[in-house]
Amino acid sequence: MSRPKNDTFLRALLKEPTEYTPLWLMRQAGRYLPEYCATRKRAGNFLNLCKSPTMACEVTLQPLARYDLDAAILFSDILTVPDAMGLGLYFAEGEGPKFERPLREEWAINDLTAPDPYDHLRYVMDAVSEIRRALDNSVPLIGFSGSPYTLACYMVEGEGSSDFRNIKGMLYNRPDLLHRILSVTADSVISYLNAQIECGAQAVMIFDTWGGSLSNAAYEEFSLQYMRRIVAGLTKEKDGERIPCIVFTKNGGLWLEKIADIGCDAVGLDWTIDIGEARRRVGDKVTLQGNLDPNVLFAGPEIVAAEARKVLDSFGPGNTGHVFNLGHGISQFTPPDSVTALVETVHSHSRLLRK
Amino acid sequence: MSRPKNDTFLRALLKEPTEYTPLWLMRQAGRYLPEYCATRKRAGNFLNLCKSPTMACEVTLQPLARYDLDAAILFSDILTVPDAMGLGLYFAEGEGPKFERPLREEWAINDLTAPDPYDHLRYVMDAVSEIRRALDNSVPLIGFSGSPYTLACYMVEGEGSSDFRNIKGMLYNRPDLLHRILSVTADSVISYLNAQIECGAQAVMIFDTWGGSLSNAAYEEFSLQYMRRIVAGLTKEKDGERIPCIVFTKNGGLWLEKIADIGCDAVGLDWTIDIGEARRRVGDKVTLQGNLDPNVLFAGPEIVAAEARKVLDSFGPGNTGHVFNLGHGISQFTPPDSVTALVETVHSHSRLLRK
Repeated sequence: MSRPKNDTFLRALLKEPTEYTPLWLMRQAGRYLPEYCATRKRAGNFLNLCKSPTMACEVTLQPLARYDLDAAILFSDILTVPDAMGLGLYFAEGEGPKFERPLREEWAINDLTAPDPYDHLRYVMDAVSEIRRALDNSVPLIGFSGSPYTLACYMVEGEGSSDFRNIKGMLYNRPDLLHRILSVTADSVISYLNAQIECGAQAVMIFDTWGGSLSNAAYEEFSLQYMRRIVAGLTKEKDGERIPCIVFTKNGGLWLEKIADIGCDAVGLDWTIDIGEARRRVGDKVTLQGNLDPNVLFAGPEIVAAEARKVLDSFGPGNTGHVFNLGHGISQFTPPDSVTALVETVHSHSRLLRK
Repeated sequence: MSRPKNDTFLRALLKEPTEYTPLWLMRQAGRYLPEYCATRKRAGNFLNLCKSPTMACEVTLQPLARYDLDAAILFSDILTVPDAMGLGLYFAEGEGPKFERPLREEWAINDLTAPDPYDHLRYVMDAVSEIRRALDNSVPLIGFSGSPYTLACYMVEGEGSSDFRNIKGMLYNRPDLLHRILSVTADSVISYLNAQIECGAQAVMIFDTWGGSLSNAAYEEFSLQYMRRIVAGLTKEKDGERIPCIVFTKNGGLWLEKIADIGCDAVGLDWTIDIGEARRRVGDKVTLQGNLDPNVLFAGPEIVAAEARKVLDSFGPGNTGHVFNLGHGISQFTPPDSVTALVETVHSHSRLLRK
């Protein structure tokens, strides 16, 4: 298996020279696209969409048909893993994800085991294979997972939370129980991501959406060390090609040096940090991915272009080491034409900067 | 007017030596206290409680009767200022604050004017005077306001928001309109805080709860510069005593040096930054206030004590420059006994460290 025809994204992650700055968008297959909404309607609900390899493949490819993006990302949800652990994921209409059986009791935590990705998560692996076939080696496919701490937030709280008082209560009162959850979850994520790689994912990303809600000391102990363990356990090469890994802790700007030090190839940045400053802090150790405020896409095309150029200019000179992205998932209210302006600007302005 | 009998808090802010590290807690008068809930019930609703100087005074003093705290903070809400501008603040039962008339139209923004604090905000000034009389010079009274950007978030969104897409849309599309809102609001905050000082507030704090949702560049332009303007416009001395000012941007750890540079006496820290690291970054330029994770208070007294000692130890040696606090408001679900353990530990351990 050779590299995809457009391998700009992989080269940027591996610090090989590129002709322009590649880009993809977190949640690029999503509700801002009318064609996505149509497929989702057909699926009946979000979970059916995730669990149908054919429909997951269909929505994964939709943004690539519209925009000149440099990577596809598997359409799925981070909560498939705890669902496969038996917690009972469901989505109440108009609300966020919830679990029927939140993890609070010691016996349930002791009973927790890592799911076999080829069994309860077979539908994800089938989607990865189907998407790879459909992509026909045009652009690389990114696999992903939530970080253990982020997954544990949902597993313990049972749903989203503004204060995380259940998991934080466990963290301070019974750190042993939380470590048990995180350890089983980290093992699950390793086998889940390795199965995605086995089925065709050409890069993987770990989303640590809630690690940034931890104190400095707790971040190291309860989030970062488990991501380090995952990175160490990942398949490094497949068919002679290195499989790069991206780690993204939202609100993790204070810990950038530590994150860049866990063995990953790239670090995702939210929009609160200046990407030039981030580059000065981590040097050439890792590729940086980010970091436009997704709300910029609510402005007109000239402003979108100007703000995108600011990110590229701030990253500064060089012909690799940056993957353009938003600092968070694209909003469902984004006008699709804003993305056209963004993609065009990132490609053309970064070519200009290389001259 | 002389300093209060216990002026440890003021001395720490002014970098004068103290025998121990003073502490108070953000939202110390609040729903975790049964006596607060009783008064609130009597008031009928939260807004009535804020608007009654007598009841506001009563709840301000409640935590001081229970705990050996080193400061009182005016009981009020940050949204009194936009309410006085005519936006119509209300609290729907079980929901957060909302405005009847969110600021979205250009004409409404152009019509916005700074309220006279002695007119529409008279009830706040009366509460400050009444609290000062009731405190009888025992501990200092802190006055406060929201930051212009934080107030503008509520004014434009009309309520709390998870993505701030209305105000961010305005920020990128019509920065002139947002600057107009921020400018009028900054002027309002200056006269509001100066009136609080005139009526007896002995220190003031600016709460920038949402500045941390901005990009690096936007934070400087839309939040920090207005706080700088406020600090410059504050009454610096009253009755021969300096009135110190604390600035707190939640999730502002990346911008610590910039915040410490706007002329304030102290900078509030949330729990994501190590306070020792923060001290190394800003040196002795400002006093640091913080920074225990409020969720620690869900643990038993030994753990509360151990975590509080960690913050004090991390701040390190010295006999001033630290005001102990939580990194965010105390949760309504906090067991009141946890606060007893916290206060006792902060006082005793910091005395020990000074030996």
